[in-house]
This record gives sequence, C-alpha cells and structure tokens, in this order.
Amino acid sequence: MKEIKIGLVGTGYIGRCHAIAYAQAPTVFPLKGKIVKEMLAEINDDLAEKKAKEFGFNRYTADWRQLVSDPQIDVVDICVPNFLHKEVALEAIKHGKHVYSEKPLALTVADASEMVAAAKKANVKTLVGFNYMKNPAAQLAKQIIENGEIGEIVHFYGTHNEDYLANPLSPIDWHCKKALAGLGALGDLAAHIVNMAHYLVGNISEVAGDMATVIAERPDPLDPAKRVKVENEDQASALVRFESGVMGVIETSRIASGSKMGLTYVVTGTKGSITYTQERMAELKLYRHDDPVERQGFKTILVGPSHPDYAPFCVSAGHGFGFNDQKTIEIRDLINGIAADDKMWPDFEEGLRVSQVLEAIAHSAHERRWIKI
Amino acid sequence: MKEIKIGLVGTGYIGRCHAIAYAQAPTVFPLKGKIVKEMLAEINDDLAEKKAKEFGFNRYTADWRQLVSDPQIDVVDICVPNFLHKEVALEAIKHGKHVYSEKPLALTVADASEMVAAAKKANVKTLVGFNYMKNPAAQLAKQIIENGEIGEIVHFYGTHNEDYLANPLSPIDWHCKKALAGLGALGDLAAHIVNMAHYLVGNISEVAGDMATVIAERPDPLDPAKRVKVENEDQASALVRFESGVMGVIETSRIASGSKMGLTYVVTGTKGSITYTQERMAELKLYRHDDPVERQGFKTILVGPSHPDYAPFCVSAGHGFGFNDQKTIEIRDLINGIAADDKMWPDFEEGLRVSQVLEAIAHSAHERRWIKI
Amino acid sequence: MKEIKIGLVGTGYIGRCHAIAYAQAPTVFPLKGKIVKEMLAEINDDLAEKKAKEFGFNRYTADWRQLVSDPQIDVVDICVPNFLHKEVALEAIKHGKHVYSEKPLALTVADASEMVAAAKKANVKTLVGFNYMKNPAAQLAKQIIENGEIGEIVHFYGTHNEDYLANPLSPIDWHCKKALAGLGALGDLAAHIVNMAHYLVGNISEVAGDMATVIAERPDPLDPAKRVKVENEDQASALVRFESGVMGVIETSRIASGSKMGLTYVVTGTKGSITYTQERMAELKLYRHDDPVERQGFKTILVGPSHPDYAPFCVSAGHGFGFNDQKTIEIRDLINGIAADDKMWPDFEEGLRVSQVLEAIAHSAHERRWIKI
Amino acid sequence: MKEIKIGLVGTGYIGRCHAIAYAQAPTVFPLKGKIVKEMLAEINDDLAEKKAKEFGFNRYTADWRQLVSDPQIDVVDICVPNFLHKEVALEAIKHGKHVYSEKPLALTVADASEMVAAAKKANVKTLVGFNYMKNPAAQLAKQIIENGEIGEIVHFYGTHNEDYLANPLSPIDWHCKKALAGLGALGDLAAHIVNMAHYLVGNISEVAGDMATVIAERPDPLDPAKRVKVENEDQASALVRFESGVMGVIETSRIASGSKMGLTYVVTGTKGSITYTQERMAELKLYRHDDPVERQGFKTILVGPSHPDYAPFCVSAGHGFGFNDQKTIEIRDLINGIAADDKMWPDFEEGLRVSQVLEAIAHSAHERRWIKI
Repeated sequence: MKEIKIGLVGTGYIGRCHAIAYAQAPTVFPLKGKIVKEMLAEINDDLAEKKAKEFGFNRYTADWRQLVSDPQIDVVDICVPNFLHKEVALEAIKHGKHVYSEKPLALTVADASEMVAAAKKANVKTLVGFNYMKNPAAQLAKQIIENGEIGEIVHFYGTHNEDYLANPLSPIDWHCKKALAGLGALGDLAAHIVNMAHYLVGNISEVAGDMATVIAERPDPLDPAKRVKVENEDQASALVRFESGVMGVIETSRIASGSKMGLTYVVTGTKGSITYTQERMAELKLYRHDDPVERQGFKTILVGPSHPDYAPFCVSAGHGFGFNDQKTIEIRDLINGIAADDKMWPDFEEGLRVSQVLEAIAHSAHERRWIKI
Repeated sequence: MKEIKIGLVGTGYIGRCHAIAYAQAPTVFPLKGKIVKEMLAEINDDLAEKKAKEFGFNRYTADWRQLVSDPQIDVVDICVPNFLHKEVALEAIKHGKHVYSEKPLALTVADASEMVAAAKKANVKTLVGFNYMKNPAAQLAKQIIENGEIGEIVHFYGTHNEDYLANPLSPIDWHCKKALAGLGALGDLAAHIVNMAHYLVGNISEVAGDMATVIAERPDPLDPAKRVKVENEDQASALVRFESGVMGVIETSRIASGSKMGLTYVVTGTKGSITYTQERMAELKLYRHDDPVERQGFKTILVGPSHPDYAPFCVSAGHGFGFNDQKTIEIRDLINGIAADDKMWPDFEEGLRVSQVLEAIAHSAHERRWIKI
Repeated sequence: MKEIKIGLVGTGYIGRCHAIAYAQAPTVFPLKGKIVKEMLAEINDDLAEKKAKEFGFNRYTADWRQLVSDPQIDVVDICVPNFLHKEVALEAIKHGKHVYSEKPLALTVADASEMVAAAKKANVKTLVGFNYMKNPAAQLAKQIIENGEIGEIVHFYGTHNEDYLANPLSPIDWHCKKALAGLGALGDLAAHIVNMAHYLVGNISEVAGDMATVIAERPDPLDPAKRVKVENEDQASALVRFESGVMGVIETSRIASGSKMGLTYVVTGTKGSITYTQERMAELKLYRHDDPVERQGFKTILVGPSHPDYAPFCVSAGHGFGFNDQKTIEIRDLINGIAADDKMWPDFEEGLRVSQVLEAIAHSAHERRWIKI
Repeated sequence: MKEIKIGLVGTGYIGRCHAIAYAQAPTVFPLKGKIVKEMLAEINDDLAEKKAKEFGFNRYTADWRQLVSDPQIDVVDICVPNFLHKEVALEAIKHGKHVYSEKPLALTVADASEMVAAAKKANVKTLVGFNYMKNPAAQLAKQIIENGEIGEIVHFYGTHNEDYLANPLSPIDWHCKKALAGLGALGDLAAHIVNMAHYLVGNISEVAGDMATVIAERPDPLDPAKRVKVENEDQASALVRFESGVMGVIETSRIASGSKMGLTYVVTGTKGSITYTQERMAELKLYRHDDPVERQGFKTILVGPSHPDYAPFCVSAGHGFGFNDQKTIEIRDLINGIAADDKMWPDFEEGLRVSQVLEAIAHSAHERRWIKI
C-alpha cells in the first residue's frame, strides 16, 4: 500500500486533534494509503522533540521551511496560527506538496486567491479542515436533502456561536488582532457555518451583513489595568441568498454567552425540515410535512451504523460520536484523496469561496448594502 | 365595583379565545372592574344569536355599527378580519369607546397612524392583543433582563414561524391577499415577535430586510385545477438595530415546516443569556456566565407561583400554562386599565410602532438597503 | 337545557381550580347541561361569602351539611382536605346527590369501599378528580395504544414525583400526618400515576413495594427548634404486574428535588413506545419501530386540534395547554355525565381500585413480599 | 518507559473498540507505559492475520492458548464471547498475566468467584470493561455527589435499555441462549447500570426483582418458519437497597423500542439531583434545591475541559465526546495501572459484585421475595 508521509506544521490545539485522528484513522477505516507520521515542525527544538514523541512522529524540526522542502514529505498539514497559513501553504506548494490546511484558509480573499492559484498551477491536492461537515449527522442531513425528503429548500438559518470572549474582562488575545486573525468571529467561527451552508444548500451568492465590536477594549493580559483595542468584530449577522435564490440568515458570535459549540442549522423545505446543533452532535431532528397531521412532529434521529461513516467507529446506534471522530473522517478523505484520487473536499477553492462570503459580509456591514459574491 | 361593558365584534378563532378569557378572568384575578358581556356583533342574526348564547353575552346584533354606537358599551373588542380593524376602531373611537383590538393593528402604517391619532384625540384607552408577552415566561424574561442578571444586552434573535401554508398545495386564502391581509407572514406573525423584541430589548430603530413569496401561486379552493396568485410574502428576515444600538435578527415564515407555534427568542447579554420557544410556553432557559466554569449551563426554569401572574392560575410550580391563560392576563390588563387606570400596554402606539417596523422590513426588502424607522 | 346545580365544598387550592374550570367550561364546550354555581361551603361565613363572590356562586354557607342536604343541589363537589372526603361524600350520597370528589377518594381502602357501596346503593353518579388523564396528550397516548400503533404493550414505567418536601428543613404539615393524609407520597401523588396506568394499560393486579420516610422528623412550624415525627412515607417504589401480565414499575416521591410536576410515563410495546412528562404537558413523544432503521427516532408531537379535546380550546396546533384546561375537560365530563348520562370516569370504583393498589404497595413494603390486589 | 505488551483475544465488535482505543490512547494521554500491540488471537489464521494488519498488532495466532502462554505478553485483553471469558481468564491468570476482560465478567456468580479467587491468588491485576463510568459526564456526576452538592442521596433510578431485540420477528441469536449468554438483558445490559449504581451511590445489598421473557420464541435464522425458544429474560426490573439504606430501582430491557443506548440514571439527594442519559453522553443535568425558588431548574452542563478526563481529547467545552473515547480512558487506566500501579477499577471483584446483584435479581424474580447480596 502506498505510503503517505505527513509533515505536520504546528502542534497546538488543532494540531493535537490532527495527531489523535492520524493515530485513530488506520484502525477505524480501511485506508487506501498508509499514514506515515514523518515529520513535525514547532517553534523550537525542545517543543518539536517533545511533540514528536507525544504524537509519534519519526522526525522533527524547529524550522517549518525545512519540513515543507523535505523530499520525503507528501502532504503538508498546516496547523499554525491563521496568519501563517498562506506563507506555509505557498512554500509547500512551491515544493510540490499536497496541502491540508486548517480553516480559515487565509486572512483575506486576496491571500486565499493566491493560494488557490498556486495550488492549481502546481497541480497539488488541497483540503481545508472544515471538519463539522464530516459528522455523520451532517452527512445524514445532506442525504435527506438530496433525497428530496424535505422537498425543495426554501430557507436556511445557521449560526456558529461560542462564548470564549463573552466576559468583557477576558484579556485581549490574538483573536482580536487584525494582523493575526483578520476577521473576528466571522473568520474564526462563521467559516464553518458558511461551509456547512454551501455543503447543504449550495453556494451563497449575495449577502447583507451587520456586525459589531461589542467590547471595544479588553484588559492587557500582562497589565490588566491597561485596556487594549479590539480590532475586529465580536459578532456578525447576515441576510444571505444562495445561487438557487433560496433565502437564509447566517449569524456568528464569540460573545454568545452559553453557546459552547453553537454551530446550529435549520434547513426548511416545502415538505419538511431539519434542525441540528453541534452541542448534540450525534442527533438530527427531522420533520416531514406529509406525515398524517395528528402524528406530525420532529423526530430525533440518533446517528448509527445505518448513517454515513458511523459504522466504522461503532456498530451500535446511539452510542455517541466525538469531536475527534469527525477529524478522523477528514483524515480518511485526505489519505484516500492523495493515495487513490478519491474526492477531497472542501478544497482550497471552497476555502476561498467561504472567505469571499465572509469578507462580503464584513464589507456589506460597512457599506450598509447588499454585496454580490 | 364599576361595570365594564364589553362589545365584542367578531366571534371567530380569536373572538372565541377572548370569550374564554372573559369567562375565566373574574375567577382567576381579583379584577378592579366587573366584566359585563354586554353585546356581540356577527355577520348575521343567526350566527350572532348562537354565539351570544355560546359565549354568554346579554345582547347581539348583526350590525357592528349598532354595537359601537350603543351607549351601554364601554369597550369595543375588535376580533374581525384584519382589513376591518381600522374601520371598526375609528367608528368606535368616534363614539368615545375604549378600543381593544387584535393584532395587527392595521394593514398599513398610514392606517395605524390614523387610528393612533383618533384615539389620542378622543382620549380613549387602547390595547392591542399581543398576548404572548403576557405569558409568565415572557414576564420572567423581562424581569431577568431588567435585573441585569444577564448583563447588558448585546444581541436579540427572534422568530415567529408557523407552517399553516407550508404545503404548496394548500389552497389560497385571505392571508395571501393584500386587500385582506396587507403583509403576509410579517403582518400575521412577525407582529408578535417585533412586539416581544420591543418589550424585552427596546424599540427597533433600523432594519435591513429580505423576503420571498416562495409559493407564487396556490390552488383556488373552489377549483383546485386553477392557480391563484399569492400577493404577499411567505417568509421574511431582517437585520435590525435597536435604539440602544443592540444588533438583532427577526425572522418570520408561514411555510416553516414543523413550526406549529414558532415564536422563539434568544436574548444574549454580557453576563448570560435567555432562550425561549412558545411551543414550550411554560419554561424559560437561563444561562449565567458567572457560574463557576465547571457548573455552567442553561437552566430550564419551569414557571411557577414565584413568577409574575402565574399564582392566580395555580399555586404549584411546573403545572403548566395554556394559550388562553395568556389572553386572560390580557383581559385583566384591559379591565384594570379601564376601571382603575392601570397601565394598559401594548397600546395603539405600540401597535403603530410594530407596523412601522414591519413595513420598513418589507420596504427594505424592495429597496435592498437599510431603512430607519 | 337542564340545569346542573353545583354545591362546592372547600375553596382552597383545588377548589379554586374547580371554580376556574366551571367558569371556563360553558364557553369552551357545548355542554349538555347548564352549570349553575349554586352554593359553596367554607369553614366560616366570612370566607364563604368572600369565595362565593370571587367564584361567582349564588349562595354560601359555613356548614357543609346544609349544602349537601340542600334540595336545590344536584352534585356535591368535594374539595375539602382528604381526611374529610368520606364524611362529606357519604352525607351527600345519603341525600341522593351525585358526587364529584377530589383524589384520593379516601384515606383507606375500607373507607373507599364504604363510599363505593353507598354510591351504588343510592344509585348516584360519581367522579374522581384524576385530571391528568383528561389532558389531550394522555388521550392521544390512549388512542395510540388502542390503535395498536406501538403493538402489544410489554412494559410500563410511571412516576409521580414532586419536591414540595425536598428540603429537610421544610416544616411539618398535614401531608405528613396519618390522621389527616393517610399515606404520604403514595396517597397524595401516586394516586394519579396509578390511575394513569389503569387508563393506559389496564388494571394493576399485583405489586411488590418498597418505601421510606427519608426525613424522619421535621421542624414544628411554630417552634422550628422542635422536631415533629413524620408519620408516612416520603417516597415509594413498586414492581407491578397488570391483569394482562404486563410488567411495570411505579414510583413516587415528595422529596424528588427538581421534579415540580413529575408525572411521567414510558409505555413500551412490541412496535414502538411513548414517553411523556407532565412538565411538558402539551407534547407526547412517539417511537415507531417499523420506521426505516435510518429514520427511526422519537417524534415530538405537539398537541393540536387533530387530537382529542384540544380544538375547543384553540384551533391552532402547538399553542399550548394549561393545567386548568384539564380540569375544564373534567367538568365537561361531569356535566354531560349528569345531564345526559355520558360516561363519567374515573368513578368511585376506579378511586377504590387506585386506593387498593396504593395500600397494597404500602402493605407489601412492610411485608417484603408481593401482594395481590 | 516500560513497555506493556498487549495480547488481544477476540476482534469482533468490542475487540475493534479496544483496538481503536489502543491506537488513540498514547496520543491523547501522557501514559506511564508504552503500549505494544504484541499479539492477537482469532478463530483462524486468515482472520487473525487480517485483523492483526487492520489493528496494527505485531503477531497473531489462531490459538488463544498460545497467546495467553506467550512469555512476551503482559496483559491479556479478553474480547471473546461471554461464555468464554472464564476459560480464557483462568488460563491467562495461570500464566501470570494481568487480565482485562469485557463485561459481564462471567455467566454465573460461581464462575466469577472462581476468577476473582484465581486472580487474587496469582496476584495479577484485573480490569473489567465497564466503560460508561469512564465518561467525563459520569465522573462529573461522581464529583458532584462526593462534593455533597446534591446533599445526602435518597434515591437512585437507573436503566440500561436497548431495543436490539424489540422486533418479535428478529431471529434468535446467542443473546437468547443460556449456555452462551447466561442471563438475558440483565447480563448483557444491566451489568453496566449496576456498576454505575455502585460507582455513584455505593454497593447494592438487597434486591426484589421481576422479569419476563416477553417474546417466548423467535424465528430460526436459517429457517424463519421454525420457532426457537428464547431461554432468558427480555426485560427485568428490581427494587434495590444500597448498603447505606438508600432506595432505588434498576431496570433493563433488550426490547425497549426506541432506546438505542438507554443507559440512564437519576440520582436524587436532599439538596438536588442529577439526571443523565447515555444517548446524550456529553451532557449532565444538575438541579440544586438551594437556588432561589424563582431561579430553580435543571441546568444542562456540557462536558468540557474543566471536567475530568475531557481536556486531553479537546481543549474546548461542548465539542462532544464519543463512545470510543470512553474506552480510551479505560485503556489509560489499564496501562497506568499495570505500569505504575495506579488504581485499576472496576476490577474483577467489582465484576463479581455486579454478577451477584444480577443473579440475585433473577433469583428474586423466581422466588418472589427480597434477596440479600
């Protein structure tokens, strides 16, 4: 079986999730390629060595440029802070590597476009880490919609709300800085729900947005008496239209008290509807309007082996599904995509399209008018 | 105790609810006036007589003009189809009657303004039937917000979705005709959630709307092979800003498959949040961000005698609350307002303000830009 | 239309609910008899007069014996403390009155038997206030079961848990005294769930019970430093077998922290199941095993006009249903039963059967063996 | 770091879960020993070879006796059908291996006792796969109870219901045969909830049980027209008493239509209560009676990094938790137990204790009386 040699750049929160998924994937799925945890890069030798041992990588380096140019590496997995995605990706592409990048693809549409163009030119494969659409529940939603079980779609409502900055006294961090994060809640969170909207309903083609930096200043983490300016939005909302003409609303917030993982959606069709919240990631609610009126209601479907990509994890229904399991499905797509040319999606083009929507929302919020994508 | 003589015009769906509430109110509440079900008007003598007997009214008439001019009547209760609200109200006001009107106050802002001006000039009291804000759960939400328990409000999301026209083959009815209904889902449903937003967060001052007539034609009820044009929107969404600057989103639909009574709201503050759905009208969910992190979560509060206006119905918590019970609280407000000059709200001015918001949403949807109220 | 003259004895918590229901019923339902709120009895003239005015009764008395012997009275409605049910009922029966009694029918099986015998001999009609089975949701559950929609019943689990005495420092009250209450949680609460079990699944024929007085002593309300003995059970559980052989479990508690109105049931059949909690009294969850495996799940059905006894309250689905609305249905049964000989159930015989089950549970808990009813 | 060489016997449903957990564990946790997937055993060479490749084991065998006697092996992991647990375990113990066995420990108390005695004598470490108590939500429940947050425990209600045999036409399988499964739902399912009860509340000391084989015969899988006798119970219920005197009820069923993973519990204390269902394995509901009465309610706590054993999987709260993640925690306990003498629980003694409770329930159901453990 073909070996796929991974070069992991960055081992923080999300790098760790990738590592767990790499560890799990070969046992869960009959992969078409053999994962080799070849090399990882961190900011210094000590950390890189420590993480290589922890994650089971063969080699490590304190210089990511060395990793992306290493002839052994097949795919560069980018888990560095968002502002570095572009630089690492372009360099990897330059060396002909396939690229698997965390979201958001880049801080700006301009950067994302450059990345798409480079990947296209170099003819490398790309994948963006929009893991929530890999969840069996999301795939089930997609199936239900494609089967026509809820008729023609007439409306989409989606959120990605969290509350990690809900407390006005939480010290400022990189999320709040334009140079490091680009957009605020839009870039960090809404990227996921826009991708989900694209996946379930089709591409968004027009938006009218609003946004606010509710907490204008936050304490300096080193000197809490000092206040530092927040440079991007805490929350945003947008009216959207899909290419099909379907209406929708997208909302996002990083100060939505109580939302720990508030990726939610309601998809309404002429014959039924679907509702979902990521906080109960192993269930989907389905309503069918053609049930007899006296037996109508939302049915709570627990994901199980009759749904996509669940059985490899567990053969019994309703036994639950975890965050890293989504990532494991993503890794399956990565390996099979590279080893056997299976479809790899969401690719950089989708990453760009998502960026275009997010930037259009921000732009619209300033211009106070509808913006076409 | 002062007698308050009621003249009820219209005895259909909502007229019947009023009748149930008139029957129940004096036993539930220690009212400051004595309800006298004096006269009702219907479209013909037979129906009027039948309904007078059924609802326990002393007299009846087939001519509502006779009712509104009857010297005995203190308050005219308007439960006729929406397009007649204005005519009946103006005539009642002309005769110096207090007016209690169902929502929406009128089909247009122009009409609503005329009604407000007339009532002001005649110095009569007015009340509009936005009953959902009378619910103990809504009053509890208001209390929590006013107490500062969820901090400063930063976001409002509200819907009033139903699915009574979800089936594209449902025959056309008066809801779909401009002359009879004015706006579509906005007028019929969103009126409630806009009022609720005003009640909980303050007045809306600016909107950017979108809307769609998803089912452009519907079968003629008498000749199903024939299609008749739908003249107003099936669904609408709007970005809103409150006078305080708070951001929000309002949505409404009459084709929201699965939503039987989808008046819902999420109010987010700097210290917590509230969520509510009318389909579970006896409970409110409350999140407090200052709970210890390992004990944070939404608390499901069942309304009980420690909450506003519940104890008169039942002295035990969690025993439930019904639709007509809301209307009974509204009747209490009506009687005490007229008999003892207690505050009567939402009055015609609020009805007008709601109409202004709704019309602005529709206007904005056509103009594709933000509209100030 | 025949007048049904009501004599109400007792105007506390539950008497008040009856009064609300009497007020509401004639507007809600096309009754077969005319309710006349003829007379009420309270412990002294002042209170009786006050309550007669509040509840709209024509006459009042401080002597219930005068009421039950009044020739005008058709039906005696017993809302006095439980320990007085028997005395008032027997006296009413002696005077040939129909009797509508709150639950539990009596403090002991012996007393209940005496009441049944007396009513039978006098050929008067009887009704016991097990109002929860009047709820449209409960009637829907019954329909689903009778239609065979969940196949043959194989198991019943039911509770009636509340937490009104959960706090060990709550002062002692009449509930805790044998002479006033008879059994503890069993008599006060479990009576309802046993009746519901009978209604949904059939009569219980055998029980094995356990029970405990968890808080052995409580503060004297007048002298909190003093402790007074609790004389009956705080909680009880029982294995039960129905006449059909079906297995089940019944539980009850008055110290079940968090249960405000914890009447719940799960009915399992060979083809599906039903779950219900009274705290969400307007919904029923239904699972059908013959749904395709990938679309199986519990469906949340909101009660609406397509379900029994909902439409008279409201013509729209999902608009909610309240505690007193159940009582209003009960009053409809009372009036139609007396005026037109419609079926009146649960009657005293059912009240007795419930008492037999409860007493058997308590007996079994002492004897530590199964007891046949 | 010390190597812990695993010998896995059986690679079906649960063997696969173990394999996933072995793969994941070293990346998730900083283990105190190094997992070496040394050898696995299956029923023939082909399957064994296939599974060794799939699960990443170094060696394989078609003879489990070879595995348990292999000098390299440190711990024998028993994932064979239940009726073989004893034989494999005794043989492994004979060779001085530590033993990690799936539940139920054995088919009978006699067998389980023999296993406990052998392990004790050989001084080997033991662990039983009661994975549900490893869930962060269960550990949180334990913490809340131990902290006294819900006061003194007064009641436990627990179920483990599933519906894998709900359809009366599902063909007979090994679960239904005494020689292969021992007890029915009690052994297969209730083992988990009895262990959970022990974990959360303490040991059960007395039971009164009832049980039924509802579907007496099932189709022969090879000849559906033929019916084969079901030899053990489809469902069982028991009143229980804990050593502390606390009352409880345990229920189990394999025909509970709609329950896909119905391990649930309600723990009630004098100051609050906890409710949990495994179908929403990443949340726990907590009620505190000392909240102000107007703010009382069940709080839905989503597990997160502030709760036990969640952070190693994900640093953000509410991101979900999966079935195999529980098993990964169990593997952590196994490795750290063997490598560093950390506490390993539930051990064989707990497995025996659980068997004693289950057998006592079955015994009590036959004898129709309470049985002491």
